[in-house]
This record gives sequence, C-alpha cells and structure tokens, in this order.
Amino acid sequence: MKVGVLGATGYAGQELLRLLKRHKEVRDLYLASSSVAGEDYESVYPHWSGQKVGSLHDENVPDLDVLFCALPHGLTAARAGSFLARNMKVIDLGADFRLNSADVYEEWYKIKHPAKDLLASAAYGLPELNRTQIRGQSLIANPGCYPTATLLALVPFLRHKLLQTNYLIIDAKSGVSGAGRGVSLGMHYAEVNENFKAYGVGNHRHTPEIEQELSRAAGLPLTVNFTPHLVPMTRGMLVTIYAALQAGVREEDLRECWREQYGQEEFVHVLPAGTWPQTKFASGSNNAFLQLTVDQRTGNVIIVAAIDNLIKGAAGQAIQNMNLVMGCPECQGITGTALWP
Amino acid sequence: MKVGVLGATGYAGQELLRLLKRHKEVRDLYLASSSVAGEDYESVYPHWSGQKVGSLHDENVPDLDVLFCALPHGLTAARAGSFLARNMKVIDLGADFRLNSADVYEEWYKIKHPAKDLLASAAYGLPELNRTQIRGQSLIANPGCYPTATLLALVPFLRHKLLQTNYLIIDAKSGVSGAGRGVSLGMHYAEVNENFKAYGVGNHRHTPEIEQELSRAAGLPLTVNFTPHLVPMTRGMLVTIYAALQAGVREEDLRECWREQYGQEEFVHVLPAGTWPQTKFASGSNNAFLQLTVDQRTGNVIIVAAIDNLIKGAAGQAIQNMNLVMGCPECQGITGTALWP
Amino acid sequence: MKVGVLGATGYAGQELLRLLKRHKEVRDLYLASSSVAGEDYESVYPHWSGQKVGSLHDENVPDLDVLFCALPHGLTAARAGSFLARNMKVIDLGADFRLNSADVYEEWYKIKHPAKDLLASAAYGLPELNRTQIRGQSLIANPGCYPTATLLALVPFLRHKLLQTNYLIIDAKSGVSGAGRGVSLGMHYAEVNENFKAYGVGNHRHTPEIEQELSRAAGLPLTVNFTPHLVPMTRGMLVTIYAALQAGVREEDLRECWREQYGQEEFVHVLPAGTWPQTKFASGSNNAFLQLTVDQRTGNVIIVAAIDNLIKGAAGQAIQNMNLVMGCPECQGITGTALWP
Amino acid sequence: MKVGVLGATGYAGQELLRLLKRHKEVRDLYLASSSVAGEDYESVYPHWSGQKVGSLHDENVPDLDVLFCALPHGLTAARAGSFLARNMKVIDLGADFRLNSADVYEEWYKIKHPAKDLLASAAYGLPELNRTQIRGQSLIANPGCYPTATLLALVPFLRHKLLQTNYLIIDAKSGVSGAGRGVSLGMHYAEVNENFKAYGVGNHRHTPEIEQELSRAAGLPLTVNFTPHLVPMTRGMLVTIYAALQAGVREEDLRECWREQYGQEEFVHVLPAGTWPQTKFASGSNNAFLQLTVDQRTGNVIIVAAIDNLIKGAAGQAIQNMNLVMGCPECQGITGTALWP
Repeated sequence: MKVGVLGATGYAGQELLRLLKRHKEVRDLYLASSSVAGEDYESVYPHWSGQKVGSLHDENVPDLDVLFCALPHGLTAARAGSFLARNMKVIDLGADFRLNSADVYEEWYKIKHPAKDLLASAAYGLPELNRTQIRGQSLIANPGCYPTATLLALVPFLRHKLLQTNYLIIDAKSGVSGAGRGVSLGMHYAEVNENFKAYGVGNHRHTPEIEQELSRAAGLPLTVNFTPHLVPMTRGMLVTIYAALQAGVREEDLRECWREQYGQEEFVHVLPAGTWPQTKFASGSNNAFLQLTVDQRTGNVIIVAAIDNLIKGAAGQAIQNMNLVMGCPECQGITGTALWP
Repeated sequence: MKVGVLGATGYAGQELLRLLKRHKEVRDLYLASSSVAGEDYESVYPHWSGQKVGSLHDENVPDLDVLFCALPHGLTAARAGSFLARNMKVIDLGADFRLNSADVYEEWYKIKHPAKDLLASAAYGLPELNRTQIRGQSLIANPGCYPTATLLALVPFLRHKLLQTNYLIIDAKSGVSGAGRGVSLGMHYAEVNENFKAYGVGNHRHTPEIEQELSRAAGLPLTVNFTPHLVPMTRGMLVTIYAALQAGVREEDLRECWREQYGQEEFVHVLPAGTWPQTKFASGSNNAFLQLTVDQRTGNVIIVAAIDNLIKGAAGQAIQNMNLVMGCPECQGITGTALWP
Repeated sequence: MKVGVLGATGYAGQELLRLLKRHKEVRDLYLASSSVAGEDYESVYPHWSGQKVGSLHDENVPDLDVLFCALPHGLTAARAGSFLARNMKVIDLGADFRLNSADVYEEWYKIKHPAKDLLASAAYGLPELNRTQIRGQSLIANPGCYPTATLLALVPFLRHKLLQTNYLIIDAKSGVSGAGRGVSLGMHYAEVNENFKAYGVGNHRHTPEIEQELSRAAGLPLTVNFTPHLVPMTRGMLVTIYAALQAGVREEDLRECWREQYGQEEFVHVLPAGTWPQTKFASGSNNAFLQLTVDQRTGNVIIVAAIDNLIKGAAGQAIQNMNLVMGCPECQGITGTALWP
Repeated sequence: MKVGVLGATGYAGQELLRLLKRHKEVRDLYLASSSVAGEDYESVYPHWSGQKVGSLHDENVPDLDVLFCALPHGLTAARAGSFLARNMKVIDLGADFRLNSADVYEEWYKIKHPAKDLLASAAYGLPELNRTQIRGQSLIANPGCYPTATLLALVPFLRHKLLQTNYLIIDAKSGVSGAGRGVSLGMHYAEVNENFKAYGVGNHRHTPEIEQELSRAAGLPLTVNFTPHLVPMTRGMLVTIYAALQAGVREEDLRECWREQYGQEEFVHVLPAGTWPQTKFASGSNNAFLQLTVDQRTGNVIIVAAIDNLIKGAAGQAIQNMNLVMGCPECQGITGTALWP
C-alpha cells in the first residue's frame, strides 16, 4: 500500500510514521508538513533517518491508497473531497468529521464547516464499538483521545440500558503530549512539572463528541460533566467515570456486559476485579484497560479506563481503521505490549 | 515554647521541623523517632545539621508545651492520655482522633481504638471552618490531606444548604509524598514516573472522615464517592468535586458564600473566575486555592481545590493549630508564598 | 527457536520478553523467576496476559536453544556449565562473565567466582566492536549499560591510537530503571524526583569492565575516572567523555574513524556535527547516538553517547547477540525507532 | 529599605520577590517588567496577591536603596550608570558586569558592552570567596549559577596551589528553570521530560566567567572544559569536577582547605566523607553542598557541588549581596533548610 501522512511532524504524525514503518503492508510512505516541506525529516527529529518531507499542497500529494490527516481543524475538511475524488481512503485524526452536526461543530470550533456534505458519509472510527460501519467507508473520523477512553468504558452499558443517564461524571486526566508540539507557556517544562491542574473546565471540545456518541448509544439525548486535567507526564490518559445504576443492575451485570463486548477483542482488556488500570499499562501500545466497582455505600459505579493518548487515542487507532478499510488483519502493525517501565 | 515532634523522620515530621525552625516562638525542639533514636538527624537527612533525635518512649519525652505526633495510627491514641496528663497540648497528625465514632474508626482502621474516652475532647483542627472549637482545646486531630481540600471547598455550601447531598463526587489527585517515606514497589520511581492511576477506589480511609464532616455541615447523614489518584509528582493535591445545586441556587450564590467564609482568611484564596487552581500555586506554602463553575449544560457545579498535601494538608495546618491553642498569631511561622517554579 | 529467560520479572527480563514476543524466530518462551514461580506473569505485570512463570531450578528448565540469564551476580556462573552441557546457548545479562580475570571479579564483586574455567570461553557481547568473536560462541557476556555506551564511543579511537590514555574522564548519567526493580529508600519516587546526584563515585562495578575493554583496545593497561549519576527519569543513559588527543589528531580524524567503524551499522548513529545526542533519541529502541567536538580552547575532545539502558544497554543487545550466535539476521526483532515523545 | 526588582516576572525575579517579602529590613518593593507593566502581578502569577507591576523606564523607577536587575544582557549595563548616579546600589543578576574585560564580553555575548567604564568598579558577588570586595561597593555582578557552584568547589584549592591547572573538567547538570521562562520547543515539557542531554558544548557563556575567576584564584591564565547538561527537573544544579593533584597533595589536604574556607560559613556545607551532594539537599534554600574523593586508581580528585540554581545560583545570592552592601546581617531573609521531599 502507498500511504501518506499530512502533518507528519506533529506528535501524532510522528507516531503514525513510527508505526507505519513496522507495518508489513505499507510499501511507500509520503510525509508532508507545512513547516519543513522539502527538508529531511531528521531536521525535525534527529533520531530518524532516510525520510523526506513533502509539501501539503494537494497537487503535490501523490496518488495514495490511504491518506492520514493530522492537521489543525478545518484544514482536512477543506481538502478531503479532492482526496476522496482521487480514490484515496482518508483517515482524519482531527475533529472535522467527528460531529454529525455542522451546527454543533461550528458552535464548538468557531469556524464554518468546510465540507458539510461529507459529514453523512464519514464513519466514526472506534472499531470495537463501530466496526461494521467503518469497513467499506472511504472517510473515517478517528476519535479524540478522551472520547476513545470514555466511550470504550460507557457505550456497552448505555446500549444495554444499565446506567442512568442524568448524572454522568467524566473526570479525565491526560499526559502533556495530547496538547501537541506547539510551544506556549502552558507547555513549558517548569510550569507543568510537579504541577497538576484542571483545564477547559466545562468547555473542552471533546464534550460534544462524547455526548453525541453516548446519546447514540443510549438512544436519547444526554449531557455529561467532562473535566480534563493535565498530568505531569508525557504520555497516557486515564478517565474516571461516575454513574448511577438502573434499578436492579448489579456489578456482575456490568462485568458481563463488558465481557460480551470485549471478550474477543485484541486491544481492550478488562482487568481482573481489584486490579485498577494504570496509564503505564498502555504506554507505547494500542491497548486499553478497564476496571469498575460498584461503591456499596453510594450505589454508584466507578469506572476507570486507561489508554496511550497517542496510540489508541490517535495514531494506533488510525492504523486500526486503515486495516479495516483496506481489508488487512485489524491488528496488523499495532500489536505489542506496553513499554515498561 | 518547648515543642516536640514524635515521628520526626517521616515526611510530615521533617516538614514540621523545617517550619518550626522558622517559628519565632519555638525555643526548644525535641525530635523523636523509633528508627534512629540516639543518632544525629543528619544521618537521615544530610542537608540538616545540629539536630539530635531522641527516643519515642514516653518517659524519655521531656516536658513540653506542645507535642506533635506524626505516627502510624494507633500509636498516638495509646499514649495521648499520658501526654495530656503532663499538661502538654497534643496535636495528632494521624487518624486516631479524627473520627468521632470509635466504631467507625475500628471498621476502617481494623484495630481497637486505644483511647475511646478521649474522642469527645478532641477538636477537629481545620481552623478556617472550626476555629472556635480548636482554641482552648488540648487535643487536636489534625485533618487528613484529602479531607482538608475537600472540606474547604464544600463545607460552606453545605452549611448554607446550597447543594443537593445525594450525589457528591470527589475525584482527588495527590502527589506521592502523601504516602509517606515507607519503601514499597508501589513507591518505586520507575513504577510511578510517567504513570497515573487510581487507588483505594471505594475504600480509602479518608472517606469516613470526609463524610463525617460533610454530614455535620449539612445537618444530615450523607455519603460521597471519593476516589484518590496518584500523580507522578512529589507534592501537591488537587480535588475536583461535582455536585447538583439546590433549586434556585446560582453560581454567584456559591461565590458569595465562599467570599463570606474566606474573604478575611490568610490561607484560603478564591481565585478570580476563570483562573483554575494548580497544585504548584500552593507548593511549599500553607495556602489553599479554590475555583468553581456551574456547567450550563448539566446544571451541576464543578469545584476545584488545591493545597500542598504536606503543609496545609499536614505540617502547616498542624502549626496553625498550635498557634491557635497556644494563643500565638494564627499565621505565625507559616506565611509565605509558594516556591515557583 | 525455543528461548528461556531466567529472572523474567525484573526490568531487563520483562524487556526481553517484550522484545522476544516480536521476534519471528522465537516459537516457545520459557519464563522463570524465583519470586513468582508457578504463577501467571500478569500477577506481576497486569498489562501482560497468557504467560506462565516457571521455576528457576535447573531441572525444571526445559531444553532450549537459547537461555537468557538476568539474575543477580554469582547465580548465573554457578549454573552456566550445566546449561551449556545441555547444548544451550547462554547469554548472561549479569556480570559473571564480563571480566576476564577472576581476581578482578572477586575484588569488585566480593564473592568467589563460581566458574573460573568458563571465563576463557565467554565472548564479550558488544557486536559492533566484537562481532566475529561472538559468532559461534555458546556463552556470551552481555555488556553492562555504562560500558556499552562508553565503549561504542571510545574503542575505535583507542584502537587507532587517536587519544592519549592517561586522562580519560567518563561522566555518566542514567535513568532509574538501571538499578532494577528492587525496593529501597534510594529508589523511592519522592527521593529521586526533582533530584540529581552522583553515586558509586570511584567505586562503581562497571569501572573494571570499562577499563578492561579500553585497555584491550589501546593495547596497554589504562585507568579511567568513571562517575555515574542518577537522573530523575526512568529510561535512558548518556555518557560524556573527556580525553586529550594524540599529537596531530584533528576532529575530522575522529569523525572519519567513527564513520569507518559505524557507517554500515544499523544501530549506531553518528549524528551530524552540531546535533547532540539526547537520551530520548534512543528510548524504546536498540539505537545508540554519538557526537563529539574538539574544544578549541583546551584541545580536548568531548564525546557524548546516548542509549536506552534497558535495550542497547541490556535486553536489546542480548537479542542482537542471540541473533548472532543463532545465525539469524542480526537486527531481527530489534529494529524500530525510539518512542517519541 | 526600599528595594526594586527590574525583570520581576522572570523566574529569578519572582524568586527575588518571594525572598524579599520575608526579609525584615525590606519595607517597600517596586516591581517592574516590560511585559506586564501597569498590571497586577497576579495576572502573571495567580498565587500572588497585592503586588502591582510598574514600568521599566528609568524615569518611572522611584528612588530606591537597592535595585536588582534581572534583565537580558545588555539592558542593565545600558542603564546602571543612571541608577548609580541616583545613589542606588545596583545588583545585576545578568552577565553585564561579570567579565572584567569588555573584549571577552563582546566575544561571547556578541554585542558591544554599553558601559565599559563601570566594569572596574563592579564587584564579583560571590560572598564566601570575595566578601571584602563586595562590602562597600555600589555595583555588584551577581555570579552565574554554574560559576557559583564551580567556584565554591575549586577556588580555595587553586588559591592554595593544590591542583594542577592544565586539565580541569567541569561536567555540569542543571534543572530547566535556569533557562528562564521563555517559551521554545526546547523547553516544551514533552521534549524535556524523560530526556537528558548536553547543550552548549564547548561554547556556553559561563565558560569565560569560570575561567576568569579560576585564573584569578590560581594566579595564572587557565582554561577549562565546561559542559552543561539539562536534567528533567525544574530546580537544582550539580557540578562534577575532575582535576589532577599537585605532587604530594592528599585528600586530607583538600578537606582541610575547604574546612578553613567554609568552616564558619552559614551557607556552604562540606558533607561528611562518603555522603555525596544531591540537588534536593539545596532545593528552596541558599545552601551549597560539597564533597570530594581522590580516586586511588587514577590519582585524580573528583569533586561534586550542589546548589539551587535559582537561589544560591541567583536570587538568594543576590540578597546575600544586598545584605553585605547594606550592612544587614549577611544571612538575613535567606536562612532556612531545603524543602524536602
């Protein structure tokens, strides 16, 4: 396969490159970046060698089988149509095709959606929950990192009406790489290290994406409280979720529901009761780890999910989607256990 | 004043020593530790000099005005009576006198309470919420770190019936020093660094302490979901709280309530709207920082509180209590802004 | 191939397992550990699944093609003979066969060497410097992490008499994982984080190993000043070396010497002039990165080498050695670029 | 005293503010910054309150007793004359008055020196080595952080001719805060965390400052190899030094020399033999820690010094200098032990 990565010098783009180099079916790789077009990739990442960076301009992008877009929002939507017209599969790691409603997109992203007509044909690329819709599609919206962890935890329960939907709390924690490679005081080592904070409280852009997919699973519109926090670490994401059970639902029902959903999955692991996910379990891998308990005093369920934000939360899942749309074995190139310690 | 610290080589004990050395009214310092009794303090902490470590045995503890106990639970209760009988003020940084009910203590700490008769005379030492009960007491239960952050955030609202009490979520995050200086695989650098996890889910011992004080504030028994997490950093604690408002309560009512409670306080700072607490704001200081927002989509309030777990959450608050019981200015020896960066 | 790992639950052992699972020629894996023999591997590492841990006892170790020993010093030497007698290739990640002289071993390791007769038949397994001696051997001494980085930098220069040998300074810095998984106060997160220190000054056990191999390269006995430091990070090793040049030697001569030695090597990368190695360039990979400059004011050369201490410094190099002794392609199973960020 | 800080929002400026607030003799504080002149200081540092930021323009700076300048190089020199003319004591935390030779300054800093005539009247403000020259001066060049640690270690030995001067290796390691608050990719958390690197190899601007002061101490011109490294931590600096002894000099002679120099010093601590400095011993304090050993195999001495780069290496030493020039007790406002852990 001939594969391209637009936005190849960001963290997600670089991680894509790392994984694609290990993928047996990938023969040619086209890398493009606005910042270093025409240079060697090692001018940005000196530990790489032998890669050239090309231009982002559509006319320079060669004919490819699959094109990954890891670009700021708005840029992919503006160009996806032309790539699709050239018979490429387009996998967008950005937000442009995640929200079904252009209105909601425009409310949260503050720009006009550049390709409303394509929204209906985009599949939401969370394979464990949505595999059949992904296969055969040409335009895939790769989910956000927070939504990936949250939806893996909650969607099965909402589909089976096991949870009440009026009080869903999603308290999320992410390593710094999720914010990308852009420089700002907020990313300065001395401001992040030995520090912990909430951010985007009540207004993070992953909120409507989470609500859309949870509403779809529940079959009714619902809202959530979603609060992301910044952890002084580079990689990793952990989500702690609080919900009330529907009457009569017991912890074992929840476990059984997960077991049915994920028992045969390569990448989603329900840990033995009492073993709680750590972000490091997933670090460097495409794996997700899940655990829950029903608190006996309050009757609420507490759910924890952990992933690597750059892999299952971005580049790894994107390749999983590529495998699906191209008919490769779904796990190809993305198996392997976390780097420990 | 003559002051003693039992358990002087743990992190809380060492922090007490650091702060007491800066306190103008403290003339003599007696340090005791089971592990290095008879040695120089610098055998444990080479950056110190000139301190001797004495024995923990009651008969070796000299006559003191104030005795801080930073010992494993059970040990202080077993001996507090004898120190009180010698007219010492006893400030317990452990858990022995925090819970009013010996039954609850025994359920959560799995040992018989060694001094049930003293429970009624112990004051819960959270000065900003409990100042009058502390003054004049001889036995002070210094609050746990998680309860300190949580109660500063919530007690004013519950006293004023601004929140519903049936769905309180306390998602807490702490640096590693809160777990003390004991060695274990779970504290190994390579297992903690670049890692984030929940622990004690549904069964952390600070739960009954939080519930007791919140119930007292609300005037009715309530339960909470309290989930602590371990952050890869040494110091600092941040608590994110979710609650539903009583009908008709607006964000401004909550702010006004905090303003009334804390407007004149030296150590508790309500940040300007939109500025969210970071643990580093408090690091190395006795300060607490608060912020909240009412999420317009769900109607719930999201509250964040940050402290230094070893200072406002332990040694600093203990000195604040000492100042109160000894009639010193409450802030003496513990003013000062966080170390930044 | 059937492959075994004794000491499979330590950090090096776990890293071996991770890499061996990706190796195409490895069919069966036998894992053994004294601490959890008989249990599932996930009882130690919950992110793993499907691995059983067996016993370390010789009689329980099945017939294998290759046996990796990641055991405390002394243990491998005591048993290597019996494994070799069963026609296994033995690759020792410990120190038992690194030193040619049993006397030197006994001086630095303070125990009697249990298998002096095997010393002569062990190859020092640093493939880029020693490839021909490794091939065809049955007993391989996998180099220490500090020696690996140091020797890659210096051996070519000493072989070619480009450096003076009377004043070699090796100032080394390592992440914490190099010290292994054992618990101690010195490994406690709160004691390591935000801290930097020298350790083993003048007496680290890698000193005689470095001196032995440098002396061999130089063709005369030499000594070095080797000072390791502990960096508050989990993985990575960087070595800064200072040496005086032989008369007439210029920077370009040194570069040319490295180019000749490493120009065709897969894993050793001489960076473009002016780009200095960072440990993260190597993290998660078997790569080494080199750079140097001749300081114009002093005339000395400053050399920097970076590796991942657990991969090129341990498990990855061990597999490289396995590939050599088993006749597999040398890079099999250990290619790939660092995990970034 | 009335005291001002120009450049109050950088890390050194903020640390000055923190320390000055605790200083008994400081009554009025004038803070100035180019970036936020006219605003509240808490717009930059929300954990502060009640401080206003003024303008940097000379005419806006009120009459002060002492003025600290924490400005980019060139800026202080351009204006020091006017402040001195107004009878202020000027303490420059930058590099403008550290080098005696304007030519050397211009070679390393690549700008014309704006106030050559003032160079002769500036005292190099390292009190433990230079106390008498500092007292009574009006213009103090506060030393760089690397020079502070290095000179404390070496100057006594060079003054007493205990070391050879032809092969001095200074391998230095610093936390990130030393690079200041400016944003750049090199300071991005994800690029620094879990990473270690050398920088400025052979060309760091502290080199001529170190060489100047060491040459002065030795009474002859000398050069050094100075290599700084970036440690993934916020605060702290450690310097490892290698030198050859003059004939006949023993380890005990070196210790005796330090003892004579520092035995009565408040801030410089020679640790007991065998206890090696850690940066955390100094963190948050004005203390320096020293240790050495003579390596028996090479005969060279290895010396380690640790300081907090922002305190003894910047703001704390600046206040020590203020105390000296103003006739306050030298330690006022800067005593206290490190924050641990």
